[in-house]
Amino acid sequence: MPGIAEPLLTVPGFSWSGSNIGIKDDSLDFAVAYCERSCAAAGVFTRNNFPGAPVVVGREHLAAGALQAIVVNSKNANVATGPDGLADARRCCKLLGEALGIAPELVLPSSTGVIGVPLPMKRLERACREAPRGLNPGPEGLQAFARAILTTDTRPKAISLRVGAATLTGVAKGAGMIEPHMATMLAYFFTDAALDAGILREMLGRAVDKSFNRISIDTDTSTSDTVVVMANGLAGAVPAEDFEAALSEATVYLAKEIARDGEGATKLIELIVCEAPSQAAALAIAKSIVNSPLVKTAIYGADPNWGRFVMAVGKVFEHPTPLEALRIEFGGEDDPLVISMAGQTPETLQRIARYLGGEELRIRVRLGQGKAQETVWGCDLTEGYVKENAEYTT
Amino acid sequence: MPGIAEPLLTVPGFSWSGSNIGIKDDSLDFAVAYCERSCAAAGVFTRNNFPGAPVVVGREHLAAGALQAIVVNSKNANVATGPDGLADARRCCKLLGEALGIAPELVLPSSTGVIGVPLPMKRLERACREAPRGLNPGPEGLQAFARAILTTDTRPKAISLRVGAATLTGVAKGAGMIEPHMATMLAYFFTDAALDAGILREMLGRAVDKSFNRISIDTDTSTSDTVVVMANGLAGAVPAEDFEAALSEATVYLAKEIARDGEGATKLIELIVCEAPSQAAALAIAKSIVNSPLVKTAIYGADPNWGRFVMAVGKVFEHPTPLEALRIEFGGEDDPLVISMAGQTPETLQRIARYLGGEELRIRVRLGQGKAQETVWGCDLTEGYVKENAEYTT
Repeated sequence: MPGIAEPLLTVPGFSWSGSNIGIKDDSLDFAVAYCERSCAAAGVFTRNNFPGAPVVVGREHLAAGALQAIVVNSKNANVATGPDGLADARRCCKLLGEALGIAPELVLPSSTGVIGVPLPMKRLERACREAPRGLNPGPEGLQAFARAILTTDTRPKAISLRVGAATLTGVAKGAGMIEPHMATMLAYFFTDAALDAGILREMLGRAVDKSFNRISIDTDTSTSDTVVVMANGLAGAVPAEDFEAALSEATVYLAKEIARDGEGATKLIELIVCEAPSQAAALAIAKSIVNSPLVKTAIYGADPNWGRFVMAVGKVFEHPTPLEALRIEFGGEDDPLVISMAGQTPETLQRIARYLGGEELRIRVRLGQGKAQETVWGCDLTEGYVKENAEYTT
Repeated sequence: MPGIAEPLLTVPGFSWSGSNIGIKDDSLDFAVAYCERSCAAAGVFTRNNFPGAPVVVGREHLAAGALQAIVVNSKNANVATGPDGLADARRCCKLLGEALGIAPELVLPSSTGVIGVPLPMKRLERACREAPRGLNPGPEGLQAFARAILTTDTRPKAISLRVGAATLTGVAKGAGMIEPHMATMLAYFFTDAALDAGILREMLGRAVDKSFNRISIDTDTSTSDTVVVMANGLAGAVPAEDFEAALSEATVYLAKEIARDGEGATKLIELIVCEAPSQAAALAIAKSIVNSPLVKTAIYGADPNWGRFVMAVGKVFEHPTPLEALRIEFGGEDDPLVISMAGQTPETLQRIARYLGGEELRIRVRLGQGKAQETVWGCDLTEGYVKENAEYTT
């Protein structure tokens, strides 16, 4: 397994920028990533039936498996903006391409924020034209990029790993409208490893399926979700399996960071459903539990109300399991606190309550029916989530 | 259409009780309904794979289509309590049957409250034995019954309708763990109309499908849901279609009362999805919207953030519809406030924000794709829901 490199590593050939162009307030809201040469690239996008204009354009531009730049704005999603929105996304690619001297098809656009409001194109046009002079290959550039893509996130999310001579650096954002099948989340991976676009696409698909598609904050699937990897080849070839291991580790790390930073969240929940009769049953039950508002509020309140887990397992009508076999384990695998259907002592419940007071929780649900296992990540549901989403148009 | 009778009407032949037996605190927690003769009866129960012991016993007892009494306790659901829980539910029926001089199979048991805790049988045994002397055929008995079945509800829920010479009175509870396919909800209908059990079962199935199966508070499907109708025939035969109309009206009324009284809720939402290509599409999209935490929090905050409706329609992957045709209408059918994808004025958004400040909202989503229509009911998501469920083991 590749080791986590601290601090965040820049990647040879790439430069980044992050700046404020006044889309909503004075926080960073415009970001560009650029590579000195064309990269093999692959992407995965939202499954929402109403994808944002940048997603439509991004799919087109990635069809050929090559990218050289990414342009992102936060605070406005450019979704449900009609033909004008599509034209706006294309215009950003065209202007940035002209400024950088590259084809517009080598630019991937991303927008995240409020739905249904036209992009402020005067500001974006100027920002695209002036983008080259802001680019910085150093850590300041990368940090500014990581900050400028945020919306309701409370902190930037990034990771760097080494794969032989190559570096893999990933940057993500996402805090609400998060549910498996992607979310209001953006994630970009930059590497100087040499990999072809077809292999990248397969690796990215597998990695996303086990990471970003396994997190849930609020069951809402965004219209803007985008995960992209760009490989410029400057470090030469690396073993494909090593690169895939690094990509997997990086996507899981960033997925957990997104769940941990869920809107209003105070706890990260890692939930493992095992001994399931099939992968489908394991995943459906895991999602039912991690999405249950009653489970999420009980965890927020550190209430060892395990009956809510029983309810959440039982409401997956299509995958019935016997109640007697159900076991719920809290804590590490070596010495967990166990709830079995045969009954438990008040001491166990008190210890579980104390355990639930922590900020990073591991809960394992054993179905006693087979060997399939799935891991998902989520967060608790708090007054903070309600407050943030009731009072605030992103 | 039958008219709503005010005040609540008792039903000849029936008597009721509601009392405190100290299951949790000093609120009413034990209720009995009894009819002087055996009734034709039908029931619909939770689809949760782990039904509570009373649901298992209730299904058995209703198989013959006859009931003469109902015994309910709140504050404890008798769910996930193993063979002992099943024996406890049967024992309640046996003791109440002995006390009333009827067969135990004519008694339906219900329990609602916390999961996984054994029933306090000493208290319940005594209460069942002493039940006959508490029964009251007057409004005080009915009111006490309606109060004793509540858990986190803030008020009792009941309705009476006249059908020719007969009376139909329905009583319900439910405030959390509520999602189509039944919920932590109990509803009992008493009538003196003469109807046979087979017809009652069909009518009840249709009525529940368009009422209790169309409400959602938190997507969580309880293990205890029960809807039962008892018809003692004292008022003689009534036209079946008139009775079904009354039963439909009563179930929709009580379903809306449950949604309105959702845990922490401040608003009742009636959501109509129309112009859908199929009933399945209409219902799936309606549920996606009414269950979306982001839509629910926006409504709580009276935020005209219609992009969240777009997201919720679009995340129903299996039923894609064209975005251009989407229209969202707020308010009465005659003069609604309209969001179309062609754009809207700030004035319209301000008027929608004002409309969302109300306590009973009607929202219509037009898909422009066909003639199918579905209506569902839900409520907003507030800090109150989180607080109640984080701090409180029911």
